[in-house]
Amino acid sequence: MINLDEFKIQAHKFVDWIADYYNDIDKYPVRPAIEPYRIYESLPVKPPESGEPVDKIFEEFKKIILPGMTHWQSPNFFAYFPANSSFPSLLAEMLTAALGAQCMKWETSPAATELEEAVMNWLKKMTGLPENFHGVIQDTASTSTLCALLTAREQKTGFRINDEGFKTADVFRVYCSAEAHSSVDKAVKIAGFGIKNLVRIETDKEYRLMATGLEKMIKKDIDQGKKPLCVVATLGTTSSTATDPVKEIGNICKKYDVWLHIDAAYAGSALILPEYRGLIKGIELADSFVFNPHKWLFTNFDCSAYFVKDKKALVNTFQVVPEYLKSADYGRVNDYCDWGIQLGRRFRALKLWFVIRSFGIKGLQEKLRKHIFLARYVEEKVRSDNNFELLAPVNFNLICFRFKPAKVTDIEELNELNMKLLQKINNTGKIYLSHTILKGVYTLRMVTGQTNTEQMHVDRAWKIIQEQAASLKF
Amino acid sequence: MINLDEFKIQAHKFVDWIADYYNDIDKYPVRPAIEPYRIYESLPVKPPESGEPVDKIFEEFKKIILPGMTHWQSPNFFAYFPANSSFPSLLAEMLTAALGAQCMKWETSPAATELEEAVMNWLKKMTGLPENFHGVIQDTASTSTLCALLTAREQKTGFRINDEGFKTADVFRVYCSAEAHSSVDKAVKIAGFGIKNLVRIETDKEYRLMATGLEKMIKKDIDQGKKPLCVVATLGTTSSTATDPVKEIGNICKKYDVWLHIDAAYAGSALILPEYRGLIKGIELADSFVFNPHKWLFTNFDCSAYFVKDKKALVNTFQVVPEYLKSADYGRVNDYCDWGIQLGRRFRALKLWFVIRSFGIKGLQEKLRKHIFLARYVEEKVRSDNNFELLAPVNFNLICFRFKPAKVTDIEELNELNMKLLQKINNTGKIYLSHTILKGVYTLRMVTGQTNTEQMHVDRAWKIIQEQAASLKF
Repeated sequence: MINLDEFKIQAHKFVDWIADYYNDIDKYPVRPAIEPYRIYESLPVKPPESGEPVDKIFEEFKKIILPGMTHWQSPNFFAYFPANSSFPSLLAEMLTAALGAQCMKWETSPAATELEEAVMNWLKKMTGLPENFHGVIQDTASTSTLCALLTAREQKTGFRINDEGFKTADVFRVYCSAEAHSSVDKAVKIAGFGIKNLVRIETDKEYRLMATGLEKMIKKDIDQGKKPLCVVATLGTTSSTATDPVKEIGNICKKYDVWLHIDAAYAGSALILPEYRGLIKGIELADSFVFNPHKWLFTNFDCSAYFVKDKKALVNTFQVVPEYLKSADYGRVNDYCDWGIQLGRRFRALKLWFVIRSFGIKGLQEKLRKHIFLARYVEEKVRSDNNFELLAPVNFNLICFRFKPAKVTDIEELNELNMKLLQKINNTGKIYLSHTILKGVYTLRMVTGQTNTEQMHVDRAWKIIQEQAASLKF
Repeated sequence: MINLDEFKIQAHKFVDWIADYYNDIDKYPVRPAIEPYRIYESLPVKPPESGEPVDKIFEEFKKIILPGMTHWQSPNFFAYFPANSSFPSLLAEMLTAALGAQCMKWETSPAATELEEAVMNWLKKMTGLPENFHGVIQDTASTSTLCALLTAREQKTGFRINDEGFKTADVFRVYCSAEAHSSVDKAVKIAGFGIKNLVRIETDKEYRLMATGLEKMIKKDIDQGKKPLCVVATLGTTSSTATDPVKEIGNICKKYDVWLHIDAAYAGSALILPEYRGLIKGIELADSFVFNPHKWLFTNFDCSAYFVKDKKALVNTFQVVPEYLKSADYGRVNDYCDWGIQLGRRFRALKLWFVIRSFGIKGLQEKLRKHIFLARYVEEKVRSDNNFELLAPVNFNLICFRFKPAKVTDIEELNELNMKLLQKINNTGKIYLSHTILKGVYTLRMVTGQTNTEQMHVDRAWKIIQEQAASLKF
């Protein structure tokens, strides 16, 4: 164990290393070329009896751990959705770790609680969410969506399930599009509805939920004595960033008294751009909304912004106040442990505060517009190369495409070919892409959303993609 | 937004400030004297249009946020249970924030996944947990206990509820002691059992669950057609660190085929001391176990160590693998997103690795023994002062006591008096204690478990307690 003086010396060394890491990040293989369990096997089976010097641990971090990391902050990271960080966020995380505050209740960290309310209100203004929404930071969109389903479950049953458990007639139905995220499945399972009661509605050719199909299904379910509980509409699907028609869906939800949750985990950040505001036309019909500043708003993971209209319903779903948690201010303040699953909470509002203030709204808008520009730029490259095909509209900054040489026409063969191509591309270590399947078609996904991605990275990426495609044998 | 050079300059400044903060931490009021919404009201309603300099944000952090924080890392923090950090943990958190890796799957961070398996195995060895347990880091014990209940729910029904939802006959019963943590209530609600199906069993005079009462209740429930699902035994209750008899409970669970989850959130850390190992006699009868290194093992919040015997049951409860998350290594490696609620995960194994290596087992044991010594030291002070009364055995490092001057005998009056005393003590800002109610008695709780708490802090604390008690008018 080290003392304060030693900590200070080491922390300065760590800062220098972090600065070097960001300076050189471009040069690391984005995804390591490594076989499973090689790192595990190189670690001692037993923990050390006596303390070891920090220098030694740090050296082994660099020698053993670092080469086995996927570099999410690399500008050559184009896979999944980014978990993009930024320097102001990093600085704030240092303070958060130093304070080590446990922000479960107002009393256990008044400033953290009040800053959370303040920055969540800022986000509301920045994204155009209704003033009557209440915000709270959750860890992930998986958790936020689960909170939405649980709150819907309780609110629609007068908090009976919390109290008595499920009854015979409780066949609750949850609806989302065929393209909605797997976290909806997970939440439906956890909430006890049964996955067969998650109804996935067909999408149109741009992968958006078809509202007519939704209404038809709700009616049918009601006729059969089932209880339509919640619709999860997606703003920016994981596969192709399709956005469901919020207003149409909202009107159906109103008509049948169904909770509307909007999963904007990735694309919600784009709402800070006025030109995207139209996507949430009808948002006042929603009951809850989630987007992740830790995805595309430069705030370190974890930071999921969850908003709910009926704050009381949320709190009544989760609140349990035993004696040892009672305090004098009870009821006058927000105790955010009552707004979700966990009791303990990190001070996550601080990094949002640093990010929003350091960038400013304009700075954030600029970054996002650049990412969107880069996506259109890649889109053009795909369109202008006869060997490639675009597979979905580029709504934000995700490009869905595939290699499609003229001489290959069989779908299975094309799927195989693109699967191989993705492996070859990622095995270069120079860039990292991921994939999905869109209506049976194996699709390469490239997201231009990493904080430090510039045109040169995109140029290089496209060159690598072309080269690897040209080198394929088929 | 700042560039890399500016970040480096600022990060060094932040390190200096953090070192000063720890140097002076003793001098901060542990809990701020602040009225609700003062900080909120001092923050701008609107986010800034243009970016602001980090210097300005940092200044306002110091001026506005810091004075409103409860200082969890202060050696004068004796409230709740600690969320104690340490310098090696802090250093690791800097790296974690810098890498900004999203550790959902092996492929998205191989080294993080493999290090997690390695350090969780270390913890197993350090605490004497059975070799056939499988470890995973969760955020909090609330989440871990919820995972246990959900896994029990699915395993006992052949994964039917995940699939089809609850049926008429599904009246699941969960058992814990009258002293078990409120997170059990929360988990029972979320899992859909209904809070009235949480059965709280009476405790003996040392606040331990009485196994005879448990068995009687299980039998009665079976006779009534209800389904005993899970027992949550506590190792170190929140109110008084009572520990339930694991072996007796385990035998009952075996007999009636009931899942046994052990909530050792706080006191589990003490198992690294051989002299406490006896507490988990019978641990091989348990199905799952949780303890929080972020409470009493010097690892920054959040870091909850969850262990489960039947790994397949856990994974089958949570796994959902959509196309965009499939990878070539599927099934050969641990994808920890399938081991819990969230998809996204921070790289939390790193700080455990730093802490265990930097302290060494001996260093950790030394710290814990010191905390336990300090508790016995306070216990002696309480015992030797006729105006005070000890209210529970000091099993680890929590002292439960009250002020009890000879002339006050009425229980309500004593409760009132101690409530006032706690307010007075905490209003000094010099130390921070919390309270509970033990069998109707308002009880002051003092935990000597903060990383940097020394005998001098405890001496000063006791003096303040005595002074404030003497100044009470009654």
